[in-house]
Amino acid sequence: MNSPAHDIQLDSQGKLRHFLSVETLNREILTQILDTAENFAGINDKAIKKVPLLRGKTVANLFFENSTRTRTTFELAAKRLSADVLNVSMSTSSTKKGETLLDTLRNLEAMQCDMFVVRHQDSGAAHFIAQHVAPHINVINAGDGRHAHPTQAMLDMFTIRHYKGDFSKLRVAVVGDIAHSRVARSQLHALRTLGTKEIRVAGPKTLIPSELDHLGVKVYTDFDSALDGVDVVIMLRLQTERMKGALLPSADEYYARYGLTTERLKLAAPDAIVMHPGPTNRGIEIEGLVADGPQSVILQQVTFGIAVRMAVMSLAISSTEISQAQGKFA
Amino acid sequence: MNSPAHDIQLDSQGKLRHFLSVETLNREILTQILDTAENFAGINDKAIKKVPLLRGKTVANLFFENSTRTRTTFELAAKRLSADVLNVSMSTSSTKKGETLLDTLRNLEAMQCDMFVVRHQDSGAAHFIAQHVAPHINVINAGDGRHAHPTQAMLDMFTIRHYKGDFSKLRVAVVGDIAHSRVARSQLHALRTLGTKEIRVAGPKTLIPSELDHLGVKVYTDFDSALDGVDVVIMLRLQTERMKGALLPSADEYYARYGLTTERLKLAAPDAIVMHPGPTNRGIEIEGLVADGPQSVILQQVTFGIAVRMAVMSLAISSTEISQAQGKFA
Amino acid sequence: MNSPAHDIQLDSQGKLRHFLSVETLNREILTQILDTAENFAGINDKAIKKVPLLRGKTVANLFFENSTRTRTTFELAAKRLSADVLNVSMSTSSTKKGETLLDTLRNLEAMQCDMFVVRHQDSGAAHFIAQHVAPHINVINAGDGRHAHPTQAMLDMFTIRHYKGDFSKLRVAVVGDIAHSRVARSQLHALRTLGTKEIRVAGPKTLIPSELDHLGVKVYTDFDSALDGVDVVIMLRLQTERMKGALLPSADEYYARYGLTTERLKLAAPDAIVMHPGPTNRGIEIEGLVADGPQSVILQQVTFGIAVRMAVMSLAISSTEISQAQGKFA
Repeated sequence: MNSPAHDIQLDSQGKLRHFLSVETLNREILTQILDTAENFAGINDKAIKKVPLLRGKTVANLFFENSTRTRTTFELAAKRLSADVLNVSMSTSSTKKGETLLDTLRNLEAMQCDMFVVRHQDSGAAHFIAQHVAPHINVINAGDGRHAHPTQAMLDMFTIRHYKGDFSKLRVAVVGDIAHSRVARSQLHALRTLGTKEIRVAGPKTLIPSELDHLGVKVYTDFDSALDGVDVVIMLRLQTERMKGALLPSADEYYARYGLTTERLKLAAPDAIVMHPGPTNRGIEIEGLVADGPQSVILQQVTFGIAVRMAVMSLAISSTEISQAQGKFA
Repeated sequence: MNSPAHDIQLDSQGKLRHFLSVETLNREILTQILDTAENFAGINDKAIKKVPLLRGKTVANLFFENSTRTRTTFELAAKRLSADVLNVSMSTSSTKKGETLLDTLRNLEAMQCDMFVVRHQDSGAAHFIAQHVAPHINVINAGDGRHAHPTQAMLDMFTIRHYKGDFSKLRVAVVGDIAHSRVARSQLHALRTLGTKEIRVAGPKTLIPSELDHLGVKVYTDFDSALDGVDVVIMLRLQTERMKGALLPSADEYYARYGLTTERLKLAAPDAIVMHPGPTNRGIEIEGLVADGPQSVILQQVTFGIAVRMAVMSLAISSTEISQAQGKFA
Repeated sequence: MNSPAHDIQLDSQGKLRHFLSVETLNREILTQILDTAENFAGINDKAIKKVPLLRGKTVANLFFENSTRTRTTFELAAKRLSADVLNVSMSTSSTKKGETLLDTLRNLEAMQCDMFVVRHQDSGAAHFIAQHVAPHINVINAGDGRHAHPTQAMLDMFTIRHYKGDFSKLRVAVVGDIAHSRVARSQLHALRTLGTKEIRVAGPKTLIPSELDHLGVKVYTDFDSALDGVDVVIMLRLQTERMKGALLPSADEYYARYGLTTERLKLAAPDAIVMHPGPTNRGIEIEGLVADGPQSVILQQVTFGIAVRMAVMSLAISSTEISQAQGKFA
């Protein structure tokens, strides 16, 4: 939507300042994130999994929507960068006392927090916050409504590159509830930007949005055809709440048509990898044997997720430090 | 009330051991707190906002009453002093299991905590705790009932001194619900002790306590007269719960009579500063344009609050360390 | 139950890898824990109560059952070893979203946590988790159902050894609700393994399990006889919930028969110590004067508890590090 020059995510030098959405970021930036994460992934083998890059910095986790798993990964990433972490549960904070969101943000800024990690149920919340924060604050989107979940998308890209290499040679299928998934939207953008040879989506018609064409994506309602020869299968988590409405058949019927079984996986390339953002619904979108099987890299995604979050945090902080240092001599 | 010699807040050398109330502290101690905070305020400009003064110390936040904002400022202050922080929500702790408060305190002492930061709904709770703790523990009052909120008062004094200098030349007005505000009580004492030239309070008769005379305070029910020529306007937060009783007219009427508007602010000195402990009720006690305007220092108060809390914590800890070191040679 | 060679708690070199139950551990291991704790107890006298043994390690507190007191002691122990601590309240975590317990564990492993501290309402939960974790994870049982509370038992042993020395010369009485106490079970095993001269239990018939004979324990229903000449009295906390059923008489009657009063304590050896895991029910199982009296070491137990937990954590981590280092050269 925005031209890169006006992308709120980038500073005047074109460096990553906020990380809100992969949509407007170019291949160079995405590759820089992946390369930086590669360094942090190496830390995991060491006895002391800590680097001092964010020492003396304060990272505030602003979770307007509860997500223990996501909060935990960001908290670990920040602590391994030696930051101080402040968990602010926004539902119990003074927003209740009639304070507006912006007042709360101004206060956290005044307390000299350096970074806000934002999780919100509304699309665009992280962008809104990034538009209004003080110049010394970096904002990281940890999932906003249906809109974006960009660190999840980047850890998926990291996992794909780690196991399968060059994107320009890969066929990737994203399967399930594309319409309501913040993860899917971010993934499709990242896959396209990184030059993926072929991107397929598969799912029930009711769960596939119509405006996918401009992303260069092939749409399948038949799962078997979508799987044919792919190198990467990304299964999405089915929000079982959807089942209550008219959008979806029963869980059994869904599994029969779109569940990734051992049998079905044989349609993909023999060395295809299976991914899932977790937590998995076994017997609904994926067979337990596949989730735990030799082609599954689901747990490796979690491990790489820490490294990718460390990468995004340290890139954003370093852009701010450079611009502040320059400001002093301006 | 107490003579300084018997003040539980001071050790035998007259150094600050607990910080419970500004009432009985003399100008020398209050000035020492402000001077020490000045050093910590400088940290904010540095990339690494951390000093090792409380390294290896454990600060326990004992919050009997929920206050995310206050807890956060103390947590940040402690972490920037390199302390380990333990958040103990006292409502969910084992006090429920029939354990008495003193039992809980004894246990935290036995776990070798070094400092208790206490927030309680009852007046005098922090004093009670300070009277009963072991010699190695420092107690900081983070607000007790209607009684005191001394770190808030000191950050207000820091802000006034920072922007307006010498107290002996200043006219200061404190406006709103004086009767029910723990902040106001502490402020009035601190302003008097620091030698403020003229202290005024303004508000509806029902919200102004009768026993203010001994504090050398001028009482106004007419806001305009109170504002005339003042250098500092401290607005209090109106607890909207008060509106339900007979104490107060409607919010609109309150705003008409005691709301700080752009128009009204012109009655004060041209370079007067506007303060508020936050969170603000815009349109009730203050106009949004004033809260965000050029004379407002509301957010700077928050920033200085971290430095003041760091000062109080480090002064209290160092008095204990000195007395313990002396004890070893006694 | 298990032969030492197959004890899941020990690695192939016979070193402590998990700490789940004292039942199958031999005297050598228990003594090693006590000796290691002795070193950490010395830290308490220092101004900086911190050692870097777990720096860069992540300890996850997995509390399926709320226990502020126990969680706090483990959190402090981990922080004083310089670990990063992650508090995961398992009731609010994604286990709600239909994720199985094992999925949650796999995820925490993938996030490169190093240690799980587990508190669970079901007996055997910590063992179950230890059986299923990845090789790099250590599991510490922080209490599971009625089964075991081994760190509490070891801090009791530490306290006894500290004050009374050689177990082979001691008469120890454990008094109260033996049947439902996870603490008692662990204590009796530890006392026997450490070679205690005489172990007595006392309590109402309904609260004493029948299968105590194989532990070499003398059972008393008359408290006075049980106290005769003992060197150590360990009082258990009475779960007042028991009173509702048919198991127990009224609180008054219980106190009359099994409450440790000043008068009754005279039956024990003149230098006997009084212990209690806390929190105490004053006037139910113990008189306030006794709990606070000169023979009580109840608060010292809490202090030693931190050192014992530091010992168990550091021993477990070091066994893993040695085996991982060896793995690299294998």
